[in-house]
Amino acid sequence: MNPSPWTMARRAERMNPSVIREILKITEQPGIISMAGGLPSPDSFPVEAMREATALVLRDAPREALQYAASEGFAPLREWVAAHMATQGVHVDASQVLITTGSQQGLDLVGKVLIDAGSTVAVEAPTYLGALQAFAPYESEVVTVPCDDDGPIPESLGVARGARFLYLLPNFQNPSGRCMSEARRARLAAAARELALPIVEDNPYGDLWFDAMPPAPLASRWAEGSVYLGSFSKVLAPGLRLGYVIAPHALMPKLLQAKQAADLHTPGFNQRVVFEVIRNGFLDRHVPTIRARYKAQRDAMRAALEAHMPKACHWAVPSGGMFFWVELPEGMDAVALLPKAVALGMAYVPGAAFFAEAPRLNTLRLSFVTVAAPEIERGVKLLAQALSDA
Amino acid sequence: MNPSPWTMARRAERMNPSVIREILKITEQPGIISMAGGLPSPDSFPVEAMREATALVLRDAPREALQYAASEGFAPLREWVAAHMATQGVHVDASQVLITTGSQQGLDLVGKVLIDAGSTVAVEAPTYLGALQAFAPYESEVVTVPCDDDGPIPESLGVARGARFLYLLPNFQNPSGRCMSEARRARLAAAARELALPIVEDNPYGDLWFDAMPPAPLASRWAEGSVYLGSFSKVLAPGLRLGYVIAPHALMPKLLQAKQAADLHTPGFNQRVVFEVIRNGFLDRHVPTIRARYKAQRDAMRAALEAHMPKACHWAVPSGGMFFWVELPEGMDAVALLPKAVALGMAYVPGAAFFAEAPRLNTLRLSFVTVAAPEIERGVKLLAQALSDA
Repeated sequence: MNPSPWTMARRAERMNPSVIREILKITEQPGIISMAGGLPSPDSFPVEAMREATALVLRDAPREALQYAASEGFAPLREWVAAHMATQGVHVDASQVLITTGSQQGLDLVGKVLIDAGSTVAVEAPTYLGALQAFAPYESEVVTVPCDDDGPIPESLGVARGARFLYLLPNFQNPSGRCMSEARRARLAAAARELALPIVEDNPYGDLWFDAMPPAPLASRWAEGSVYLGSFSKVLAPGLRLGYVIAPHALMPKLLQAKQAADLHTPGFNQRVVFEVIRNGFLDRHVPTIRARYKAQRDAMRAALEAHMPKACHWAVPSGGMFFWVELPEGMDAVALLPKAVALGMAYVPGAAFFAEAPRLNTLRLSFVTVAAPEIERGVKLLAQALSDA
Repeated sequence: MNPSPWTMARRAERMNPSVIREILKITEQPGIISMAGGLPSPDSFPVEAMREATALVLRDAPREALQYAASEGFAPLREWVAAHMATQGVHVDASQVLITTGSQQGLDLVGKVLIDAGSTVAVEAPTYLGALQAFAPYESEVVTVPCDDDGPIPESLGVARGARFLYLLPNFQNPSGRCMSEARRARLAAAARELALPIVEDNPYGDLWFDAMPPAPLASRWAEGSVYLGSFSKVLAPGLRLGYVIAPHALMPKLLQAKQAADLHTPGFNQRVVFEVIRNGFLDRHVPTIRARYKAQRDAMRAALEAHMPKACHWAVPSGGMFFWVELPEGMDAVALLPKAVALGMAYVPGAAFFAEAPRLNTLRLSFVTVAAPEIERGVKLLAQALSDA
């Protein structure tokens, strides 16, 4: 045997399989009630609207929809995004909107343009695993900003001094479910500005509020120091892979060049179909039905947790989004517990994966959006049983 | 004014706007006969088949098509690709197939996994500009392997010793149009193996042959030392952004992790629609119609070049693909000539952009697939006029 002719890049050592995707494979066995993945309810997918929109695009603009297209994205969709951002208090020009192949690609492009080997990126604790995965190949060091139940603590932001950016999810955070208050946003944006610490703000869940719309994005408070990532995955469907980046003019040329190199452009067909679906206010009618569905499922999980979980477990009730974040009694290990829960017939994601450093082993994440209310009740009961057995 | 809080990564300096995409913007003015972009003829897009397939997918599997999906790609499509490769003499398992968001993403993932800052990548002269753009952000040095009309010269491959890989397009190369002979492939693969120099083989145009199918890919001659990139852009439609990477088992885990970090997965909707289009032999009926169309357009361009171009210009007649590569008399500059050609009403891509080093200023690339035969005749006449004026 010859030795392998391949030499891997040093950054490949930083790449790891997604814990969640590995768990998903195990838990895709039929009969398992999976609260592991953050999979939107397929009942919420706008199939009929998709049917009409695809037919329309293939009737009216097939040659354009199927041809190579601009790396920036489909102009009317960029205009729509800019107008949508204005309703949240973020005033940008369509030239500041870059359409991406899911918001995961936005994370990759931000990492590619902003992270040098050995530079520092600041994150919340816990934080979104996919962001850690996107940044890791660019060989960043990661610093964790101390957090409380309202997000990163402004007075502690000094630990992130000199970082290339602070990555955060202010709305119904994945995995903690927390939503940052108005006051915290104001103080955090001011503290970041004071430190000249740019913010990368990820907002896949902001539209999934149950009682009140979340406060305005941090990007509305410090426009030239913020990159904002948005997504159509949670309000339409993730299988279309459609997201966007809002960036200050200073960053757009390099983000666009990175986008060209990454995949030339996001499928024009998908962009035109989604624009056709949403152009006439469809989301104003559709998203409230998702909110109502997820709120009922949140309530079902809340009731099940209260009814079945041991008293020593703790959780906050999320006011939107997709996740409960559960703390088991100190000393318990959610990684070790998982096989037992799976053997009983349910699955979750151990919380440890969501920490860049100092993982808290006694935490776990439960999604309440993928399975319906009766299964939520059964699944939580099985989790409680696994806990009592352990 | 505060100074900008953003610090760019060092690699951002290596990123540049695509010359072609910039030219395309200029030449999209109505009335310009553009032979610049490598845009497939929209008359070749299988719109009716797309209509049927989208309707079928949204009827039979909407919940699966619109949901998150496996990073590896849609299993039946991976199986199809593996079977398709076998017809070309490349025998792989579906587990060696990674579905990508266009083959441009394959180039990015290969660069991400294999290139370290300061490492070397070997390319042909000229070579595909998009590959140079994909590799550049990973801060490679580029070495050019001496080439003749049959591609890289095996006896000269020593200049690439120690490179991470040799990137090449054996079939109807972009931009030169040349197709590597059977004998050259055999000698080149043997020489690369001898040097333990891995090969990254890009094959977007291989199906677009006019007279005879090209010889088997280099990947069929040295499987464990080859990565192969394929695409549906030229045989179906580029707006779907669907390509694939074939890799040895040793590389798959890291390519897959890089893929997860880049965009989680390629749109499942697109993968299912394309699989639905092609599953029953559609390409066996469809691709011959593209070949016939492009062959007629190749003939039109050949006739126009022979009729109108000054005697001191040279070109080879491509036996497939999309491009004529034209050499102007020594001392002429195709970059300087372009504005004059555009002023007259036609556009091309100056050849200099396709060289990693030592650009040959007296070269240009003409696409014969985007515009129809009568416009080809008119466009070449305008080019000849610009040349005589200069």
